[in-house]
Amino acid sequence: MNRFPKEVYIARRQKLKQLMGTGVLLFLGNEESSMNFKDNWYPFRQDSTFLYFFGLDMSGLTGIIHVDEDQEVIFGDDISTEDSVWFGTHPALQELADSVGVDRTRPKRDVAEVLKDIPLEHVHILPPYRPENLLKLSEWLGISTAAVSQQVSEGFIQSVVALRSIKAESEIEEISRAVDLSVRMHKALMREARAGMYEYELLGLVLKEAASGGGSVSFPPIITTRGQILHNHDYSHQLREGGMLLGDFGAESAMHYAGDITRTIPVGSVFSSQQKEIYQMVLDAYQVAVQALRPGVFFKDVHLLACRTLAEGLKSIGLMKGDLDEAVVQGAHALFFQCGLGHMMGMDVHDMEDLGEPFVGYTDTLKKSTQFGLRSLRLGKQLETGFVLTIEPGLYFIPQLMDQWEAAGLHKDFIDYKQVAHFRDFGGIRVEDAYQITPVGAKVLGDPLEITVSEVETLRSTVGIE
Amino acid sequence: MNRFPKEVYIARRQKLKQLMGTGVLLFLGNEESSMNFKDNWYPFRQDSTFLYFFGLDMSGLTGIIHVDEDQEVIFGDDISTEDSVWFGTHPALQELADSVGVDRTRPKRDVAEVLKDIPLEHVHILPPYRPENLLKLSEWLGISTAAVSQQVSEGFIQSVVALRSIKAESEIEEISRAVDLSVRMHKALMREARAGMYEYELLGLVLKEAASGGGSVSFPPIITTRGQILHNHDYSHQLREGGMLLGDFGAESAMHYAGDITRTIPVGSVFSSQQKEIYQMVLDAYQVAVQALRPGVFFKDVHLLACRTLAEGLKSIGLMKGDLDEAVVQGAHALFFQCGLGHMMGMDVHDMEDLGEPFVGYTDTLKKSTQFGLRSLRLGKQLETGFVLTIEPGLYFIPQLMDQWEAAGLHKDFIDYKQVAHFRDFGGIRVEDAYQITPVGAKVLGDPLEITVSEVETLRSTVGIE
Repeated sequence: MNRFPKEVYIARRQKLKQLMGTGVLLFLGNEESSMNFKDNWYPFRQDSTFLYFFGLDMSGLTGIIHVDEDQEVIFGDDISTEDSVWFGTHPALQELADSVGVDRTRPKRDVAEVLKDIPLEHVHILPPYRPENLLKLSEWLGISTAAVSQQVSEGFIQSVVALRSIKAESEIEEISRAVDLSVRMHKALMREARAGMYEYELLGLVLKEAASGGGSVSFPPIITTRGQILHNHDYSHQLREGGMLLGDFGAESAMHYAGDITRTIPVGSVFSSQQKEIYQMVLDAYQVAVQALRPGVFFKDVHLLACRTLAEGLKSIGLMKGDLDEAVVQGAHALFFQCGLGHMMGMDVHDMEDLGEPFVGYTDTLKKSTQFGLRSLRLGKQLETGFVLTIEPGLYFIPQLMDQWEAAGLHKDFIDYKQVAHFRDFGGIRVEDAYQITPVGAKVLGDPLEITVSEVETLRSTVGIE
Repeated sequence: MNRFPKEVYIARRQKLKQLMGTGVLLFLGNEESSMNFKDNWYPFRQDSTFLYFFGLDMSGLTGIIHVDEDQEVIFGDDISTEDSVWFGTHPALQELADSVGVDRTRPKRDVAEVLKDIPLEHVHILPPYRPENLLKLSEWLGISTAAVSQQVSEGFIQSVVALRSIKAESEIEEISRAVDLSVRMHKALMREARAGMYEYELLGLVLKEAASGGGSVSFPPIITTRGQILHNHDYSHQLREGGMLLGDFGAESAMHYAGDITRTIPVGSVFSSQQKEIYQMVLDAYQVAVQALRPGVFFKDVHLLACRTLAEGLKSIGLMKGDLDEAVVQGAHALFFQCGLGHMMGMDVHDMEDLGEPFVGYTDTLKKSTQFGLRSLRLGKQLETGFVLTIEPGLYFIPQLMDQWEAAGLHKDFIDYKQVAHFRDFGGIRVEDAYQITPVGAKVLGDPLEITVSEVETLRSTVGIE
C-alpha cells in the first residue's frame, strides 16, 4: 500500500494533539468529484491534510480526534457485495484504520450524531475548498453554509501548518521521487519537441511519462509556446522554428507528493541571441536566489533579491533605467515579473494553499503586500530547516500590460517603454526547481536536469533538432 | 473555435421553446472543480446540456430562456486585465454570445436579481449533479438545498431528452471523430501490451494517444488484467503471460462528444482454448444483438436476446443447464453477466445520465426492472432512428458472487456450481462498440478495429508478441 508505517501517522497525530491541547478536531476526507454526470468521476484526489494524519486514500471518510479524551475515530462504510461486483474489494475499514494506527471506526452516518453532542465552540474545522464538504459541514454542525467560515479554527490551521511545513526525511524522499519523475517528463519533452508539432501532442507525451512512472500530474501541465501567459492551459498552438516552448509541470507520486519544474527551450536546437540574453537574466536571478536560501532568511527578501537581479539585467539592455533599488521598492520590475519567486511544496504543489496564505506563507508580524507583483508572492516568511519550496523567476512580456502601464504613465522613471516595445512579441521565459532548506543552506531535489543555456542547447542538438 | 455554426444553436433553442411552450428555463454552466486546493483545478468540463444549447465551453456561465417573451440571455463576466496576465485573453462575452446566436448578455451577479422576480412555479431547472450548482440553485431560488430536487422540472428534462436523443448528422460526425480517436487509442494498446508491463504504463500510452489527437478521455479508462471487476480503476497489476487484458476506454473529442470501446486481448499473441471459447460466446452475443438493432425494437429485448445467447454458450460447456428461456426470465445468467448490454452515447459517454435513467432509458409505460442484472440496464425503451448507443456484452467470473449465490442456493436449476468453480480464476471478457440506429437497422461508428478471435490474434502475432 502507498502508506508510511502506522507509527508515522500515530506520531503526527500525537504531535497535533500536543499542539492543540484541547478540542475536537474534524478532518474531512474528499468525495468523488463528478464531471458531466454523477458517476463519471475525475480521478480521485484525497485531501492532503487527511492523508497527512490518517493516510487512507479513498473517498467517503471522515476523521475525528477528541484531544481531551485522547480518542481517534475514522468514520466510513465498508463496501457492499453488490458494489464489489463493480469496483472490486477493499480491505475492511477496521483493517485500514489499523494500518494507520487508529483503533476505532464507525459508520459514516454517525458523524452527525457524534457532532451534535459537542458544543460548537469545541469543534475545530479547517476551511473547506470543495462545495460538497461545505455542505457536509453545514449539515453536521447545524449552521448555514455562510456561517461555516466563521467556524474555521485558526489554532487548528496553525497547528497543521506547523507540522506539515517541516518535511521529515521520509517525506523528502517521497518528494524527490516525485521530482525524479518530473525530470523524466521534462527530459521526454526536451527530447521530442520539434517545429510543426502541436502543444497538445507534447501534453500527451508528458501525461504518458507521468502515468508510466506510476504517478499522475500535480497540477494541469503548462506546455505553451506563449510563455508570457503565466497559467496557460491552452494546448492548441503549433511549435514554430525560432520560437520557444515553456513547460511548467510536475508529477504527483503514488503517495501524493508533488514535483514542480519549469524549463523554457528553443523550438530549434539553439536560442536566438535575444532569447539567450533574456534566458541568462532569468538564470542569474535563479542562481542568486538559490545562493541566498538558508534558515532564518525571509523569503520575501530572497524574492526581492531576484527582482533586483532581473532589473539589473533589464537595465543592461535598456528596458529599465534609473535607481534600481528604488525601482524594485516601487515594483517597476513587475511589468516583467508579475508573480512570486516561489511557493512551499509538499503533498500540494502549492503546499497547504487550502489552509490560507496568511498562515502558510506569512505571519502575524509579516503580512502580504498589496503591491502588484508582491501580492502574488505566496511565501514571504522566514525559512526553516525542512521547508521545501520552489525557485521560479521569469521574465514575461505581456503586450496588454505594457499598453496599460504606458497609458497610465506608470513607473516612467524606471521603464523605457520605447525599448520595451521591441519585445512585444518576445513571449516569456521561466526556470524552476524545488529546494529543501537545510541547516546550512539549500539542496536541489531530484535528478539533475539541463538548465544552463549551453546544457539546454547541447541536449537539443544531440537529439537531432535542426 | 470548437463550436457548430450559430444556426445550429439557434435551431436547437427554437425547438426547445416549441416543446416547452411556456416558462423560464435555467441552464447552469459548470464551474472549475478543485482538486486539493481551490485554484488547483481538474481539467474543466462544461455541462453537456449547456453545451448543446449554448455551445460556450468555459466556466462561470448561466443561460436563461424566457419562453413566453422569446428572450435568451447568457450571464457571465468578462475577464479582467489582471486575470488576463495569468490566463490570457478571451473574446468578450458579447462576442462569444453572438457566435452562438444569443443577443443579450448580463453580468453574473444579475442571475439572482432576474430570478427573484419570477414566480418559482414558472422556473424550470434540470437536476444538478455538482454540489456548487446545487448551492447556486438554492441561493438563486431562495430555497433550501434539500428543496431543490422538488423544483426539478420533468417537462424540461423530457424536452431536453427528446432533442438530445436524436443525433443530427453533424453530431454523428463528431461522435465518429471521437470513436476514430478511441480506435487509435485501442490500436496503440493492442500493439504495445506485453507480459511484464504494468497496467499504468498502458494507461500512459492511452492518455498520450487521446491528448495527441487533440482530445481527452470520455471517462477514466479501465485497463485491467482483472476484467471481472466491471469498473476497475486500479492500474497497479503486472501483465502476465497466459492472462488477458481488458481495455474499456474512449476519447472525448474537442467538441466534447464521446467514444467508448472495449476489447479484451491475450497478454501473449494467442488466447488459450478456454479463453477463446468464452470470448466467442461474448462475440456471438454481440453479433446477435447488433443484428437485432432497428427502430421500434425495445432495447430491453435486445439485451435479453444477448443474455439468451450467452446462456446458450454457457450451457454448451456445462456452466448453465435446464430451460434457458426460463433461466433468462429468472435472471440466472446474471451470475456471469451482471450488467446491461449498452447505453446511450453522445456528449456524455452515458448520454444524459445526469437527467435520470427513467427519462433517458425508460418511459411511463416501461419502468426499469429491479431484478439483479436487469436493474443495471440503463436503456430499455424502443429505439429510434438517430439514437447512438453501445453494445457491450461480457462474461465475468466473480468469485465472491459465485460463493454468495451458491451459499444462498440461488438458481440451482440453471447453474452447475461444480463446473462454475473451475472458472474462479478465469477473469472477465467484454467487447464493445458504438452503433447509430438507422431507418433500416444500425451502423457501427468509427474506423474498424480488430474484434474476432482471429483478427485479434493476427494483430497480436504480427506486432511481435511472443
